Amino acid sequence: MKRWGFILVTAAVSLPVWGADQPLVLASQGSFFVGGETKTSPTLGGPGAAGAPAAPQDVTINQMYVQYQKPVNADRHVPVVMVHGCCLSSKTWETTPDGRMGWNEYFVRKGRSVYLADQSSRARSGFDATVINAVKSGAAPPSQLPNIFAASHQTSWTLFRFGPEFNKAFPDEQFPVQAADELYKQMIPDLNGTLPTPNPTLKNMAALAVQLKGAVLIGHSESGFFPEEAALEDPSGVRGIISIEMGCPEKKPDELAKLAKIPILIMFGDHLGDVPGRFANTWTTNFDTCQKFVGQVKQAGGDAEMMSLPAMGIKGNSHMLMQDKNNLQLADLILGWIDQHVERTKSARR
Amino acid sequence: MKRWGFILVTAAVSLPVWGADQPLVLASQGSFFVGGETKTSPTLGGPGAAGAPAAPQDVTINQMYVQYQKPVNADRHVPVVMVHGCCLSSKTWETTPDGRMGWNEYFVRKGRSVYLADQSSRARSGFDATVINAVKSGAAPPSQLPNIFAASHQTSWTLFRFGPEFNKAFPDEQFPVQAADELYKQMIPDLNGTLPTPNPTLKNMAALAVQLKGAVLIGHSESGFFPEEAALEDPSGVRGIISIEMGCPEKKPDELAKLAKIPILIMFGDHLGDVPGRFANTWTTNFDTCQKFVGQVKQAGGDAEMMSLPAMGIKGNSHMLMQDKNNLQLADLILGWIDQHVERTKSARR
Repeated sequence: MKRWGFILVTAAVSLPVWGADQPLVLASQGSFFVGGETKTSPTLGGPGAAGAPAAPQDVTINQMYVQYQKPVNADRHVPVVMVHGCCLSSKTWETTPDGRMGWNEYFVRKGRSVYLADQSSRARSGFDATVINAVKSGAAPPSQLPNIFAASHQTSWTLFRFGPEFNKAFPDEQFPVQAADELYKQMIPDLNGTLPTPNPTLKNMAALAVQLKGAVLIGHSESGFFPEEAALEDPSGVRGIISIEMGCPEKKPDELAKLAKIPILIMFGDHLGDVPGRFANTWTTNFDTCQKFVGQVKQAGGDAEMMSLPAMGIKGNSHMLMQDKNNLQLADLILGWIDQHVERTKSARR
Repeated sequence: MKRWGFILVTAAVSLPVWGADQPLVLASQGSFFVGGETKTSPTLGGPGAAGAPAAPQDVTINQMYVQYQKPVNADRHVPVVMVHGCCLSSKTWETTPDGRMGWNEYFVRKGRSVYLADQSSRARSGFDATVINAVKSGAAPPSQLPNIFAASHQTSWTLFRFGPEFNKAFPDEQFPVQAADELYKQMIPDLNGTLPTPNPTLKNMAALAVQLKGAVLIGHSESGFFPEEAALEDPSGVRGIISIEMGCPEKKPDELAKLAKIPILIMFGDHLGDVPGRFANTWTTNFDTCQKFVGQVKQAGGDAEMMSLPAMGIKGNSHMLMQDKNNLQLADLILGWIDQHVERTKSARR
């Protein structure tokens, strides 16, 4: 192969690598799938044959698409897996709606290998469309169609706590509301209603952590408690758990005992009780369930921390805090927590 | 902000940058959307309110998600936009099913800015789920459901010309058939049946080319002729067209005259007529329509080239030639064509 296409990389001194104005140096990048099973589908025969092909054929379902970037010297830190919430894709973690650096790149620039997963049934992971074609052809009743969720502009604004009512922002709002239209483009239909129980994403996250020989799992909103659930499926690869803005379901003592072996960070933003109407109690209730969960994990001997941003003097953060104007400040809090609770633990064990 | 997290980048000599074992140096990367319109949907109210929310709310539809990487000195070359085919996402262009470097990274290592677009209604671009929820709630009949296409394992194998029958490969097959299961994980439902006419992806591709102040558009299979159609929507940003393995629809003289102003490359792989059964004539017919199209563009004074790989002595290429074992050799052919037909033209015009 010809050796052309050279770039001269010269640096007399060490370069600060976190700035968006600095080149990003990757040891490697790529994408792959975790999980997935073959299903013989009566309605998915191939292009041009929707509805009822001649014979049932095989498709792959429940796989999880993962895109990764590794910095140079990636082995100094534990890899980080980021999983998005409802009605969103991994775009969540990338360039913010107003065009700033997302957590995905910032974490890489801070020396972490980052793995972005599209939830099974969402975005590049695909979904099982069998039943939709079956209903179209009359082979199944409309009631069997999945519930498809989408977050409207109106719902996003208030549920994500940009302000007290649609198109009115809180005075100290950290979400870049002038770019809300760009967030709305990220909101895509949620087809988790097509998935079996338990959600394959949980098993896939646990398997990815094993494949990486240890990883910190980060979930947000719909997927906020997925790291805990993944660890309950298989804790062997889960080195740390970061859960952002979700409800914490009641866990049994044996489950709490398992989770108490893994450092857990929970993070909530501001204005939890400041949205009137349909979502008035959503966030305060979620916060309370997680506060209780943190207490229970601690009681079981675990290392769990509730990081309430306003309680730390960091005001105005929305539900989409990885996109908020102070998103890199919050990333630093998380990176610091990983250093202290996940990686120091590793050294201590040696 | 604290200045920590340094990486020492030192290189006494120039580095060959195309090898997967060499660091990848990016000037920048990110993602954004092109296009998109607000739609007031009667059935998409937000999480927990599928079917019939209290009042119709707004969602954004028809947007196109784009992920990009720019190498250092990107302004030396025209940016390249890659758009995937049916039942696939931009994963098409990334790490191959057997784990080799995809065209996305290779083109960046060859100094090109690369923009990967998920077609409108696919993957991270989302889709309009209004009608599916309407059918579920009884507000619309099942016949209004979109045709959803998926390529089964069996269909993919023969339609993509891995071999004459399922799980039997051609002796000289270039697709890494031992990793076919990994390709099947990339095959996701195609919801283009939910889109209006003309397909918004065409307008979005043309708009992206304008936004980039000139770009080469690459399409494949379902999207193979999208670059031409995008140029007919608005040619002002389209500096070059690369169409891979599709049918070429009949074009009128005024359309041919417009397309004759843009360099066009069409590429086909091998074994076009070697698959029996349902797809026996698919590829030979497609090839013939494109051969005719090339002749017509030339007759209109244009620069159009049919690159038939077997005619050049390159044997065994499948429909997924960006994933074939010789994918980087084929990328070099395309890069060379861009240098000769798009970028030399630019210099000549100065």
